[in-house]
Amino acid sequence: MTSDGNGQEAEEELETPSGKRITALADGVFAIVMTLLVLGVEVPQVPDEQIADRLVYEVLLLWPRIAAYVVSFLVLGIYWMGHHTQFHFMDGVNRTSLWINIFFFMFVCLVPFTTQLVGHYTGQEVALALYGANLIAISLMLLLHWHYAARAELLNPATEDAEMRNATRQILVGVAIFAAAIGVAFVDPRWSLLVFLLVPVLHILPGPIHLHWTR
Amino acid sequence: MTSDGNGQEAEEELETPSGKRITALADGVFAIVMTLLVLGVEVPQVPDEQIADRLVYEVLLLWPRIAAYVVSFLVLGIYWMGHHTQFHFMDGVNRTSLWINIFFFMFVCLVPFTTQLVGHYTGQEVALALYGANLIAISLMLLLHWHYAARAELLNPATEDAEMRNATRQILVGVAIFAAAIGVAFVDPRWSLLVFLLVPVLHILPGPIHLHWTR
Amino acid sequence: MTSDGNGQEAEEELETPSGKRITALADGVFAIVMTLLVLGVEVPQVPDEQIADRLVYEVLLLWPRIAAYVVSFLVLGIYWMGHHTQFHFMDGVNRTSLWINIFFFMFVCLVPFTTQLVGHYTGQEVALALYGANLIAISLMLLLHWHYAARAELLNPATEDAEMRNATRQILVGVAIFAAAIGVAFVDPRWSLLVFLLVPVLHILPGPIHLHWTR
Amino acid sequence: MTSDGNGQEAEEELETPSGKRITALADGVFAIVMTLLVLGVEVPQVPDEQIADRLVYEVLLLWPRIAAYVVSFLVLGIYWMGHHTQFHFMDGVNRTSLWINIFFFMFVCLVPFTTQLVGHYTGQEVALALYGANLIAISLMLLLHWHYAARAELLNPATEDAEMRNATRQILVGVAIFAAAIGVAFVDPRWSLLVFLLVPVLHILPGPIHLHWTR
Repeated sequence: MTSDGNGQEAEEELETPSGKRITALADGVFAIVMTLLVLGVEVPQVPDEQIADRLVYEVLLLWPRIAAYVVSFLVLGIYWMGHHTQFHFMDGVNRTSLWINIFFFMFVCLVPFTTQLVGHYTGQEVALALYGANLIAISLMLLLHWHYAARAELLNPATEDAEMRNATRQILVGVAIFAAAIGVAFVDPRWSLLVFLLVPVLHILPGPIHLHWTR
Repeated sequence: MTSDGNGQEAEEELETPSGKRITALADGVFAIVMTLLVLGVEVPQVPDEQIADRLVYEVLLLWPRIAAYVVSFLVLGIYWMGHHTQFHFMDGVNRTSLWINIFFFMFVCLVPFTTQLVGHYTGQEVALALYGANLIAISLMLLLHWHYAARAELLNPATEDAEMRNATRQILVGVAIFAAAIGVAFVDPRWSLLVFLLVPVLHILPGPIHLHWTR
Repeated sequence: MTSDGNGQEAEEELETPSGKRITALADGVFAIVMTLLVLGVEVPQVPDEQIADRLVYEVLLLWPRIAAYVVSFLVLGIYWMGHHTQFHFMDGVNRTSLWINIFFFMFVCLVPFTTQLVGHYTGQEVALALYGANLIAISLMLLLHWHYAARAELLNPATEDAEMRNATRQILVGVAIFAAAIGVAFVDPRWSLLVFLLVPVLHILPGPIHLHWTR
Repeated sequence: MTSDGNGQEAEEELETPSGKRITALADGVFAIVMTLLVLGVEVPQVPDEQIADRLVYEVLLLWPRIAAYVVSFLVLGIYWMGHHTQFHFMDGVNRTSLWINIFFFMFVCLVPFTTQLVGHYTGQEVALALYGANLIAISLMLLLHWHYAARAELLNPATEDAEMRNATRQILVGVAIFAAAIGVAFVDPRWSLLVFLLVPVLHILPGPIHLHWTR
């Protein structure tokens, strides 16, 4: 919408309001997806006459659902921060970058479904593989968005190459761990969720994975 | 609320905060509707003793729901961008335009229901027709909003006639395709969802449909 | 937090960010409540062998739920606009006004429940009475907020008495109609929902009810 | 991201946009969690032929769910205000404070589950204890965030020690009451929910608990 017309990239670039609205949509989507995860932790239905005997036991049986809830919540926290960091470095958006965002959201919004699948069928490699595939798809959309933004010159000029390399490395480390977790699911499903948990643990512990925060 | 009183339109016009709150409501509504779509993709309930045999099969049976999810998500992405583009060109809102927005949201919020209907009864022309009618109603509200805003002088003066013609054309192309998809549903329901998918495909591919982005 | 300390009211008054966050919460709450209404319109479960015969019929049977959805959606639109108008005239919030807002939201968030009750038990006066009571509670919270804001000097000084009288009148007209709808429910439940619908109709039609928009 | 590099804290500090996005996420999360609470108040399923006799009775049977809804809604209102007050005094966020927020949200998002548990099994000490544990976890995250923000110099310099002491005291009073409510649950579950209700009552009544509002 800029009228100075300095080249193809500028022609498609929108001014800041669009960037603000895509982050507003992102904050909304993440807030809701995080909150909907809890629908996967269902209140156990215990018949009245058995409550005294069985309620504690039934609540304890919820642990795989709670575990899936925790892993998904923390991973979504990472993606939210990743998206947030990305827009910190962006000057504008264009039609293509908006569509990459929509596809990113489309995979993010599937997380409550794949999380419920894992919570319900914890020991099943199919459930764990679909969950891993979902997370990998989100990661790849985020990576695509970084690289498209760089190529289309949507990043602000002060963004250093080190930022890009660091973001790329972080995302790929996540993808590698998720792939490993899928692999582990086919060997021994019991350990798979713990491998998934490795991603938030690596992000929470201070260390080389968040070089760009400690520059 | 302006007190300069230059004519009937200005009398009803609100200043920007109202426009900001309607877009905040819009971003919220779209974020939630997009996220609620996933509730239509239910985790299959497979008895414990049959999990090993049937889980993969049951997950594959979810494909019509996944397909409906994808189509609705992308179509909502288009409507979100359309609404976003519209407010980009608007200087203010008035009571009538707020009500058009409320009706627009009312049809947008029905999408999770009609999407579930299609996901559940994929082969049924009634489900597909209701889905198409829902999408057409949203499109018509968006169109009405453009034309009302132009007539009530709520658009900013720099908005060119070409913008309006282009937006009108885009919306009407969508309506025509949705109508065609309803028609196809009564001939052979299996192809109908693919016709619906044509709308996001046309919007994602670069081409004459988004003239106003590449001006 | 203001330090000029001109009397008791100023002491408790917060600066604008608080007002911005309460409107952000309001926009979020309204967006979600409006969207959750659709969960009351459930996809009918028709056995496979009866789909061809019964799906259309079952969809038609949804009409009371659709009617309840439409009435609630439009009434929520009115409350959203009312809340929005109110904050348009407010300079700040204090602890008491925040709590009135929380109670306002508490009743707004019950609307999906009472709407489902009416959609499910359309002909039952109990359901309609609870629905009406819910809407009246919301109205009274809005009224309380106006009058508290005026008394605590949270309104901006330019707010005229005519605004207050007009807002009060609008809210009380709504309360009277809702009360009438409850009364009608006990005489003949079939007409009750139409009486509820009178409120959005009166707000949408141009007329004396929105004097303050056309001043 | 600041480049003046005055010590370790500044290195990790982000500028305001991050703070704005975390509050946007917070407003979204609270709006949704508050709204999802209503899903715990399910419409009773009464067979057609028994509606006339039993609907009123079945609606009255919902009272424990309504009570749990009210307590949770008001407690969430307190947490929302607490979070809001905190960010009022903060100048920026860093990686660690963002993660404390994510864990805070993770416990907030569990509230619809624990509330449903209490609504469903009102008389069961296990349900009440889990509910109390959930609320205590939220409180402790809020407390941790205050103290971390103070230590990492993320609070604005004008924040007085009295603010911190007051916030700490308020949170600890809440924790003590929730702990007492858990204790009461094991003695006589019928009184436990009333003890929980004490927290919102203390916050709503004017008194020493909100010293920092009346400074």
